[in-house]
Amino acid sequence: MTTSDLYEAMRTQRAVRRIRPDPVPDDVLQRIFEAATYAPTGGNQQAWRMIAVTDPALKEQLGALYAGQWQPFSDNYRKAAETMDADAAAAMDRTLAAGDHLAANLGRVPVVVIVCFKPSGLAVTDIDQERVPVVGGGSIYPAVQNLMLAARAEGVGCVLTTLLCMSEPAVKKMLNIPDDWATAAMVPLGYSVGVGYGPISRKPVDKLFCQDQWDQAWDAHP
Amino acid sequence: MTTSDLYEAMRTQRAVRRIRPDPVPDDVLQRIFEAATYAPTGGNQQAWRMIAVTDPALKEQLGALYAGQWQPFSDNYRKAAETMDADAAAAMDRTLAAGDHLAANLGRVPVVVIVCFKPSGLAVTDIDQERVPVVGGGSIYPAVQNLMLAARAEGVGCVLTTLLCMSEPAVKKMLNIPDDWATAAMVPLGYSVGVGYGPISRKPVDKLFCQDQWDQAWDAHP
Repeated sequence: MTTSDLYEAMRTQRAVRRIRPDPVPDDVLQRIFEAATYAPTGGNQQAWRMIAVTDPALKEQLGALYAGQWQPFSDNYRKAAETMDADAAAAMDRTLAAGDHLAANLGRVPVVVIVCFKPSGLAVTDIDQERVPVVGGGSIYPAVQNLMLAARAEGVGCVLTTLLCMSEPAVKKMLNIPDDWATAAMVPLGYSVGVGYGPISRKPVDKLFCQDQWDQAWDAHP
Repeated sequence: MTTSDLYEAMRTQRAVRRIRPDPVPDDVLQRIFEAATYAPTGGNQQAWRMIAVTDPALKEQLGALYAGQWQPFSDNYRKAAETMDADAAAAMDRTLAAGDHLAANLGRVPVVVIVCFKPSGLAVTDIDQERVPVVGGGSIYPAVQNLMLAARAEGVGCVLTTLLCMSEPAVKKMLNIPDDWATAAMVPLGYSVGVGYGPISRKPVDKLFCQDQWDQAWDAHP
């Protein structure tokens, strides 16, 4: 198979926080959702579900909850920006302004996806380590990434957010999520106000990959 | 952009546990690793690193550790298979035999990727919920999924495994991983003994997606 579409989708997968209210056609949503279903999960358990929220009243309520978490979160970043150099502060300002826009407009985003998972369906192999467990996410976020890559490829903007997990009990009540399920992310989906994709800023391979030992960069490969 | 490569990669991304010792060319590995770097992370922190283990002695040692965790794990599944119907038991047998092969041959897999992360670099927004946290994985497993999708597209087999997290202290010592970093996965990479990709068995969209409320399937969409 060829690889150009795949790499282009990955290379241009920007976080899109300014989303237009225009509807996303059902066939496009169907393909994006199918992409999520393909993802691997531990023991092929697929102990995740996604709720596609399209009801305006529910989206407004989610937006109010999200805005409540976003406010103190963004205040901290605004304070941190005061001690940054001008370029970093300007970049932070742009991100925070886009986040403000998302928080204020969530009710008008066409589809707000709430990602759920069943803790008892996950084999959390790092539960006994002396640090925060992450392995449960290994059976959830590959599906989220498939969803987001498909959205990018379909020209639909989105962003992976997790602040709403701090309001999990309220979200569960609002969407009728059973007691033995939990929430892992919120992904708003819709067409971007601006271009919505393009170059991303990431560390290069030799800063993120080592060879054989921690202190040996991959570019040391013979 | 077109979407065919992307969806084909996702739709055929099987777990590959029988891997040939033939080397993977450096340019192919470079593209696979670059794909991982593109993934989104919370606050663009990229608080992950991957160690590509190619040294035969180190791979043997990782294989011995992995086999030690695989044995009791697979014994449990073999016991569970005794009460399954014939088809399910046969499928389980095939998966377990492939897992046995991986455990016995890890030293001969060309590249064994150990995925690391820095707990203090993650915003774990679900740390206070009364269930196992997963959100830290939201800044790690999208990169792992990018790596695996790129591998699939390049014809390189791989599988996401997490059993080795149970031996994290030994793995950290072996690879010189700093105290304030941890491990999230092991992904063996190489060409498959068999076809290595093809149809996957997953639940359909209407079993995994709801609309507006938990008990309302997405196919209820008007």
